[in-house]
Amino acid sequence: MQRSVPELLAAKRDGHALTADEIRGFIEGFVRGDVPDYQMTAFAMAVFFRGMTRDETVALTLAMRDSGVVVDLSHVKGLKVDKHSTGGVGDKVSLCLAPMVAACGVPVPMVSGRGLGHTGGTLDKLEAIPGFSVNLPIARYAELVGEVGTCMIGQTRELAPADKRLYALRDVTATVESVPLIVASILSKKLAEGIDGLVLDVKVGSGAFMKTPERARELATALVEVARGAGKQCVAWITRMDRPLGRAVGNALETIEAFDVLHGRGPADLTEVTLALGASMLVMGGVAKTDDEGRALLREAVTSGRAAEVARRMVAAQGGDPRAVDDPSVFAQAPVKAVLRAPADGWIAAIDTHAVGVAGVTLGAGRTRAEDPIDHAVGFVFERNVGDRVAKGDVVATLHLRDESQVAPALDRLGRALTLSQSAPAEVPLLHERIG
Amino acid sequence: MQRSVPELLAAKRDGHALTADEIRGFIEGFVRGDVPDYQMTAFAMAVFFRGMTRDETVALTLAMRDSGVVVDLSHVKGLKVDKHSTGGVGDKVSLCLAPMVAACGVPVPMVSGRGLGHTGGTLDKLEAIPGFSVNLPIARYAELVGEVGTCMIGQTRELAPADKRLYALRDVTATVESVPLIVASILSKKLAEGIDGLVLDVKVGSGAFMKTPERARELATALVEVARGAGKQCVAWITRMDRPLGRAVGNALETIEAFDVLHGRGPADLTEVTLALGASMLVMGGVAKTDDEGRALLREAVTSGRAAEVARRMVAAQGGDPRAVDDPSVFAQAPVKAVLRAPADGWIAAIDTHAVGVAGVTLGAGRTRAEDPIDHAVGFVFERNVGDRVAKGDVVATLHLRDESQVAPALDRLGRALTLSQSAPAEVPLLHERIG
Repeated sequence: MQRSVPELLAAKRDGHALTADEIRGFIEGFVRGDVPDYQMTAFAMAVFFRGMTRDETVALTLAMRDSGVVVDLSHVKGLKVDKHSTGGVGDKVSLCLAPMVAACGVPVPMVSGRGLGHTGGTLDKLEAIPGFSVNLPIARYAELVGEVGTCMIGQTRELAPADKRLYALRDVTATVESVPLIVASILSKKLAEGIDGLVLDVKVGSGAFMKTPERARELATALVEVARGAGKQCVAWITRMDRPLGRAVGNALETIEAFDVLHGRGPADLTEVTLALGASMLVMGGVAKTDDEGRALLREAVTSGRAAEVARRMVAAQGGDPRAVDDPSVFAQAPVKAVLRAPADGWIAAIDTHAVGVAGVTLGAGRTRAEDPIDHAVGFVFERNVGDRVAKGDVVATLHLRDESQVAPALDRLGRALTLSQSAPAEVPLLHERIG
Repeated sequence: MQRSVPELLAAKRDGHALTADEIRGFIEGFVRGDVPDYQMTAFAMAVFFRGMTRDETVALTLAMRDSGVVVDLSHVKGLKVDKHSTGGVGDKVSLCLAPMVAACGVPVPMVSGRGLGHTGGTLDKLEAIPGFSVNLPIARYAELVGEVGTCMIGQTRELAPADKRLYALRDVTATVESVPLIVASILSKKLAEGIDGLVLDVKVGSGAFMKTPERARELATALVEVARGAGKQCVAWITRMDRPLGRAVGNALETIEAFDVLHGRGPADLTEVTLALGASMLVMGGVAKTDDEGRALLREAVTSGRAAEVARRMVAAQGGDPRAVDDPSVFAQAPVKAVLRAPADGWIAAIDTHAVGVAGVTLGAGRTRAEDPIDHAVGFVFERNVGDRVAKGDVVATLHLRDESQVAPALDRLGRALTLSQSAPAEVPLLHERIG
């Protein structure tokens, strides 16, 4: 006999696993409107306390994926591999990674999100490119993955609509911080893209959703296990987010910096994360046998100019000005500049990366609500980072601002995010560990 | 700074206590519609896991009480005391208790509920009296408590409307079984009646909501502490519900049996529970110094005929035929009778009291949905009960049925609820313990 929704809620509440059919029926009922929001949020809270087994999370992921269109990319030759990051400050990896991987022969279908809260979003960075559209029809997206090797669009209503509705409810019911719900949310969207494999960048540190290596490992492990349970290849890298990645924070500034990587002149940390994730994607796509081989192929794609060429083709295909890949002056410029100087001699011991993200949002570089407009030009460029020694008066960061009224508060916020010390801080590895 | 609703949910989720102001604001927002149902159910599920402190539960109770009218009975002389039972099978105590206590000079304002699930409801039993109305205006109810000494009405929309809405949500989100939510639900309604004190009958056993003495004690203790925290006198009795109370199950049959108690000819167990609860009410009302003195006053109210006279006045004042108090033939009769006989020699070791309740509901004596109609005449009268020795073929119960088609399934259901044994079962005390 089939269990009623209240019976399913009671079972989950009491720590019992639901069957795959029960979870699918529950999500289908939610999508149809037979399961009201107030039952879904009770479910989410019960899951927060009781968790879900791997099989339950796989079932939830697949049911949410199947709430909308699952893109068919079978016409595109080769194994399609995407990357997903759990989000951080200055994380512009996707913008250089996708063209580099595609230039090596592994197609990268990429459906991305917008920034919300202190973290930026790939779509907002792309839209800093004049003319660039992230709102392509699914069919055009599927074509471009084949023709260009990569295409970057926003989540449409057609892909995993159950996730969109559930996330909106979780956001206002204190049920975001649940590993199985996070896993199902991330993977349901990614599986709907038409991928064969997925490389994950799970950020850890003050600017990340997961503040400790333990929590990051828990999430990474669950993601890898559930993605594999859903029949996809998957590997996760746990990477450092206790400071902004690269030097730039802010949409146009970050896009310019990502394109620098394509030209071989990107910051070392950003380049290294891109190579690590990209090598895993090339191995997954069957183009490289080892990570070392993958790294060599990626470097060759940069030095040969093929990576930049894929980026130009992608930008042009999506309506953007392809000169943006090579020429920063194509981007809108912030009219006011200011500099943050070291208040004393010492080492930069820490940067409150969450506070840096919030400082950017306050300028207009991000949003606190989904409908907030974005100022693509504003942001920060860090001249010094954690571990660097500074003398009093040294320029730590350049601020790109909309007007003079932003100078004092932005300097104050950014200044308070810095911690100086009288000895060098302990080194934190950029790549913590690989899971899977 | 005031915390947002998601912040309150996160705090409760993480095991932190909310302030009284926060809880009041949350309930007020719920009543206004600013707090949607999906946040309330997430809250209820978080409370299921994390519980509430005494102070939080007091605040929730008072906020829910204040969501509607709080009846002013200050014009009625003396301390007003009510009784509440957590519900069971054959529990008709209110119908004899209220007139007996009122006859001793303690006014009994009583707002009752309908039966739902396997338990009966006082309102349904009262409506078995021809002409009786439980739907009086609040003002008329307040008058009658003064004039007659007691009045029994149904919960109106004016009393604790937040509880009604919250209960409807809990019922379909597996959040009924939470002690602080049960406590706030019970007490918010009772405090809205205009009482000074409350005596609780917390049932324990196979026919009760609380199946074990430990769970019953937990609920009873919480009820007493929260009622006192809300400034009311309160005592709880934990009483036996591992078998039907009295002999009758079914609305008219139970009302007739309750009136038998008023005439001094009720079953021993029903009379004893009535005296125990009533004595506590008289002590609470200041009319008796000790329970023994209270019992003596109650017995005198019966033998003098004053208790029956109060019942007649109450029935008449509420539109019913007062002859019903003395003459069972006033009630509707079920046209078909059948008898359940002992299938073998032995002792009645146990009665699955929940199953007896469900068997009654199946006949039409109760409801599975709030809108189901009630057949007041049908039910069972037990000739033997747990602990009695029976010979094969002895009549265990008489069934009062609507038609012949009910005979075979009702006999089957009731027969399967009985367990016979070859030795006398252990005795279970009728009055387990008094809390407070």
